[in-house]
Amino acid sequence: MSGSRENHREDVIGRANVEDTPELLAYYDELDRHSAGALWTVANKIEPWQPKSQSVPVVWRYRDLREHVLRSVQLVTPEKAGRRVIYLNNPGRTDVSAAVGWIYAGLQVMNPGEVASAHRHSASAIRFIMEGSGAYTVVDGHKMTLGANDFVLTPNGTWHEHGVSADGTTCLWQDGLDIPFVNAMEANFYEVHPDLSQAVGYAVDDMTKTWGNAGLTPAGQRWSKGYSPMFKYEWAPTYEALGKFAQCTDGSPFDGVMMEYVNPATNGPVMQTLGASMQMLRPGEHTRAHRHTGSYLYHVAKGRGHSIINGKRFDWQERDIFCVPSWAWHEHVNGSASDDACLFCLNDLPVMRALGLYREEAFGDNGGHQPLV
Amino acid sequence: MSGSRENHREDVIGRANVEDTPELLAYYDELDRHSAGALWTVANKIEPWQPKSQSVPVVWRYRDLREHVLRSVQLVTPEKAGRRVIYLNNPGRTDVSAAVGWIYAGLQVMNPGEVASAHRHSASAIRFIMEGSGAYTVVDGHKMTLGANDFVLTPNGTWHEHGVSADGTTCLWQDGLDIPFVNAMEANFYEVHPDLSQAVGYAVDDMTKTWGNAGLTPAGQRWSKGYSPMFKYEWAPTYEALGKFAQCTDGSPFDGVMMEYVNPATNGPVMQTLGASMQMLRPGEHTRAHRHTGSYLYHVAKGRGHSIINGKRFDWQERDIFCVPSWAWHEHVNGSASDDACLFCLNDLPVMRALGLYREEAFGDNGGHQPLV
Amino acid sequence: MSGSRENHREDVIGRANVEDTPELLAYYDELDRHSAGALWTVANKIEPWQPKSQSVPVVWRYRDLREHVLRSVQLVTPEKAGRRVIYLNNPGRTDVSAAVGWIYAGLQVMNPGEVASAHRHSASAIRFIMEGSGAYTVVDGHKMTLGANDFVLTPNGTWHEHGVSADGTTCLWQDGLDIPFVNAMEANFYEVHPDLSQAVGYAVDDMTKTWGNAGLTPAGQRWSKGYSPMFKYEWAPTYEALGKFAQCTDGSPFDGVMMEYVNPATNGPVMQTLGASMQMLRPGEHTRAHRHTGSYLYHVAKGRGHSIINGKRFDWQERDIFCVPSWAWHEHVNGSASDDACLFCLNDLPVMRALGLYREEAFGDNGGHQPLV
Amino acid sequence: MSGSRENHREDVIGRANVEDTPELLAYYDELDRHSAGALWTVANKIEPWQPKSQSVPVVWRYRDLREHVLRSVQLVTPEKAGRRVIYLNNPGRTDVSAAVGWIYAGLQVMNPGEVASAHRHSASAIRFIMEGSGAYTVVDGHKMTLGANDFVLTPNGTWHEHGVSADGTTCLWQDGLDIPFVNAMEANFYEVHPDLSQAVGYAVDDMTKTWGNAGLTPAGQRWSKGYSPMFKYEWAPTYEALGKFAQCTDGSPFDGVMMEYVNPATNGPVMQTLGASMQMLRPGEHTRAHRHTGSYLYHVAKGRGHSIINGKRFDWQERDIFCVPSWAWHEHVNGSASDDACLFCLNDLPVMRALGLYREEAFGDNGGHQPLV
Repeated sequence: MSGSRENHREDVIGRANVEDTPELLAYYDELDRHSAGALWTVANKIEPWQPKSQSVPVVWRYRDLREHVLRSVQLVTPEKAGRRVIYLNNPGRTDVSAAVGWIYAGLQVMNPGEVASAHRHSASAIRFIMEGSGAYTVVDGHKMTLGANDFVLTPNGTWHEHGVSADGTTCLWQDGLDIPFVNAMEANFYEVHPDLSQAVGYAVDDMTKTWGNAGLTPAGQRWSKGYSPMFKYEWAPTYEALGKFAQCTDGSPFDGVMMEYVNPATNGPVMQTLGASMQMLRPGEHTRAHRHTGSYLYHVAKGRGHSIINGKRFDWQERDIFCVPSWAWHEHVNGSASDDACLFCLNDLPVMRALGLYREEAFGDNGGHQPLV
Repeated sequence: MSGSRENHREDVIGRANVEDTPELLAYYDELDRHSAGALWTVANKIEPWQPKSQSVPVVWRYRDLREHVLRSVQLVTPEKAGRRVIYLNNPGRTDVSAAVGWIYAGLQVMNPGEVASAHRHSASAIRFIMEGSGAYTVVDGHKMTLGANDFVLTPNGTWHEHGVSADGTTCLWQDGLDIPFVNAMEANFYEVHPDLSQAVGYAVDDMTKTWGNAGLTPAGQRWSKGYSPMFKYEWAPTYEALGKFAQCTDGSPFDGVMMEYVNPATNGPVMQTLGASMQMLRPGEHTRAHRHTGSYLYHVAKGRGHSIINGKRFDWQERDIFCVPSWAWHEHVNGSASDDACLFCLNDLPVMRALGLYREEAFGDNGGHQPLV
Repeated sequence: MSGSRENHREDVIGRANVEDTPELLAYYDELDRHSAGALWTVANKIEPWQPKSQSVPVVWRYRDLREHVLRSVQLVTPEKAGRRVIYLNNPGRTDVSAAVGWIYAGLQVMNPGEVASAHRHSASAIRFIMEGSGAYTVVDGHKMTLGANDFVLTPNGTWHEHGVSADGTTCLWQDGLDIPFVNAMEANFYEVHPDLSQAVGYAVDDMTKTWGNAGLTPAGQRWSKGYSPMFKYEWAPTYEALGKFAQCTDGSPFDGVMMEYVNPATNGPVMQTLGASMQMLRPGEHTRAHRHTGSYLYHVAKGRGHSIINGKRFDWQERDIFCVPSWAWHEHVNGSASDDACLFCLNDLPVMRALGLYREEAFGDNGGHQPLV
Repeated sequence: MSGSRENHREDVIGRANVEDTPELLAYYDELDRHSAGALWTVANKIEPWQPKSQSVPVVWRYRDLREHVLRSVQLVTPEKAGRRVIYLNNPGRTDVSAAVGWIYAGLQVMNPGEVASAHRHSASAIRFIMEGSGAYTVVDGHKMTLGANDFVLTPNGTWHEHGVSADGTTCLWQDGLDIPFVNAMEANFYEVHPDLSQAVGYAVDDMTKTWGNAGLTPAGQRWSKGYSPMFKYEWAPTYEALGKFAQCTDGSPFDGVMMEYVNPATNGPVMQTLGASMQMLRPGEHTRAHRHTGSYLYHVAKGRGHSIINGKRFDWQERDIFCVPSWAWHEHVNGSASDDACLFCLNDLPVMRALGLYREEAFGDNGGHQPLV
């Protein structure tokens, strides 16, 4: 083994810089036998100067993927496949089937009258509707109806099932989960519902009607679970909110007019491991570049434009999905001079913030804009 | 002094029951000289079996008070009066000018083009609009426009001024403050604004537009003050919210369909010392009686009906104000079989809850309804 | 009534300054009939420029009171008196039997073998031991043994009883409660224990042994009540802590080396309505003057010296008790050049802080020292 | 690529069970070209029924490793090696140099008069002293002296340096860090201190003297950082605390008498990503088996015994280190009938709890004891 032993030397004061010698190599072999190693051989690798993400920036274009998603309907049955999903497989993260960082995402299709079997797991999920009518989700007995750009939470540990009503149309949506993260934490459990489906025990959309009222909380009700009781977040009030907020803010230089989806009981993130936001790029807006820790998966909810990520341009239009890896420079450009563009973003900010790992930095040169490479 | 000395004896085990004797009376006189006293003479008074409020239930009928409020316009100028306000003077609390418990309330009138001078104080306040158009309030440079059944916060320590725009109409509203409480806590400070008015530094209604979006928070903004950043709570979305909530709740047996106004940054009360709620009594609804600690001042925002408080009936209709003292039994009746009735309530629940002093009890007899006395 | 009607005019812009006229006096009478009043007649009274406490500064000297406390043993039986307590009756607060502000305090005596009957109430209490051995308190079945300068909590709603073991000596202690405050909030309930005494269900001093370990918490135990689980705070570790802290702090210019007693589960106050602190004045220390809202009752745990309160000197020595009313200037002087002095302080800071009513101000003139008046 | 394509079929309802066909394999190839994949080929892998840790249980025996650690003094200089550390390399986690899960640990040696250069990083660390005198650590200018079984925090982002005073002896200690985790989160930054060492700006051990006082907090000081201000936790008061707690608890059936080290400002974990506890196994104690999510690294602070982990026995004595991977069954046995044994444990419980991923289960069979395999 000594022949191929790793040694990451740097000629910088305060960093490891030990040359391999026959004596040391023999010592390393001896340490191996005790399930141990010499830190100085790996210190510079495991203590990098700054993060270097394993993920690469990618755009998944809907015009490319849509037909493949639809084709899955012919190729597999829901019974055999469990769910007909095409997942986004970041070239740097194929070992964990992640779209970016520790976030999984997939595109799912369901025909009218179909329903997936109910299950639950420790991974947390969202379902963001892309097209079709009649989609619904049941979470712990609460049924939510869903339209385009609405999204629904299926948090850690909740029974859930997705379906499309018989009078609906074929629906496509994006799933987003923290499966890779929960697996990495060695904390994922999975159960199939004993009845394969849930009884609906409440008025349809009751949680959003009860908790989704600005400045008002249902008297006598408490909510102390780790996720939002609101479950469903609708597009229409979100877009209206962005419009109102835009009237009284200059916006962020890096993100335009941006709002975070929150748990109304805490004003914190919608779930403990996944956050979500919607941002509006005003007509012609070109934001300044910055970078931050955490992994970000964008879904173009409205409009067209492009983003520059680590100096490379990625064009996008409605329904495209793209990712920004941790500590990657990025800036966004609305491609229209007359219409706004809206980006939905799924991320692991709640993890980064809860654990004190969030950091950000503005791109200082060139007026805040990256040179293209 | 010994002659009139108080002595609250009770013939119950565990309670004080000491007869006055000449020796004891001489002893009490001696204690007086050292600014001291014998606990057993007052113990039963200061440790009552249960609260007995000094406040009495009252209804202030708008049809009685409105003309007197309007008459103040003829009688005093704003310059001399400060503000033209008729305050509600609970017969049991005239020593502290309170409407109920430690809550002050008044009815104020202002003509188009008038504006009160800006000031601030440690007392917290709300302004609940009763009639007229063109009312506005400025709080720390944020201007809010106000219509009927809207209310605005002017929290502890904020500069504030009320006005009516020149193109408006005569406005009447209810003020509600914790002046008596803050005085009792010996913590009230008062300042007149050096310029007597504030510059408006933000878009009109910016705080409600920024913070008043269900399930969404402005990205990058934090709010850690002790009061809500929302400042203004409007009637239209409140009434809509009650309607939605009514679709998915049975309501409280004691309060019908009830929502509490909250600070969206915490889901806690709108201010640290004053809380507010709006409740809908459905057509024909007659709630069950209960009682709880804390002081409650109701304002009839919509409809007509009556409440039974400690066995006595109090009829009310739109714009009437009535109070429920601490630990008083009370139940509410909507007088209409076809329309809902809505009660706005200002209270000191945030104080009772923050200090561990809240307690409640259901009326158990007679199907939950008090016999009339 | 018009003849004696109050009217608090001030000739300051922004303040009420309305002259009584026959027309206005008639108007005021009319308002009276509707349980209402004209704000401008009382506005300047209820909105003062700054707090003016009803309490006056007082020192209760132990050498004066001790014999009277002991004499109560001859004068009344525990059965008839409930408890043999001489309470401190601030000349400005005799209406509510308070020592200062809304805080009640008394000196209690108990002979060996005596025990008071168990009861509970909404008022929160502490018991601070002054002299004697064998004192103990039982709180919700937890028994605590107590020596001089130890204190024990009997929080809101807990069953409690005090006693002195048969092999002890006559004990004197200071009680401190928020009885006046809880009465003012109309939230006081009182119950005698059905058995008149409690069974002890735990190891003696278990709560302090379990929770009183710096930097360590009992694994698997949670505490979410509004008061500290520690129940007893002992003098020896407190004095040791002050000594350690003194090695690494300059202390407060106003309070010397000061630590606050806390609930170890939250680092917040020991109870929701009462706070406590212990401060060490180093040999010869003379603090600078400041003032703050809230009411403060000091107990001299060690040493001698004096305090200057609102310009008047109050000498004190071990076991004396003195008070500082809200917003009163005060500074402390250790009378010894060689020994430290320690002041225990019971206060309502938790209320002031929880409700946003705390404010403080340094005395800026004369090097921070008040001129004597 | 199709030839070796993975496919994790399960013949269970609700799970993926799709047979490879030429058509499907071609489809999978097509998806590859779009950085996408078919979920049903990997779903059963990424959604396991329960966690299966990559880490294996290991005991690192001090008698085996100590000489190798000491030998590093001869083999490398501190200047070249940075730090002379032998790290614990779990056979299942050599790719990330972890001792267990995402936790790194190493044994470090330092001679009298040596000091490592100051640096900081996003990883959080503890240093647990094993032998020697004169060890010290400086954290953000605060110097702490350290003896056996003391440990010190060097939290995320703090400047820190370790040394041994010239009058001390050769010191060995265990380092514990979350390096693998912070790397996995792609959030690790590293800086060498510009001066290579820090000025000490406070009294020695000031933070423990200020914050390490049970039931007392320094008045006027606030601490809102994500880690404990106490920095150093000493063995003597810890062992005393365990002894006191043991007098009033039956202990946990799974862990004996166990206390968690906490941030005194919050009663929460000492750092956001790493937790620590000390547990006492009473003479002869044999705990029952359970399992929970999270990764645990034990250090035998006192005594000898063995643990059974996933049915295999691991003997240990003072200074040995062993690990329990996520969801592994484990029970502990004190090998002495007369003396207690104490286990220090470093873990990622704060992460598991903050993110809602903690779960535990008791071993129900065989009286709670695992059969040996």
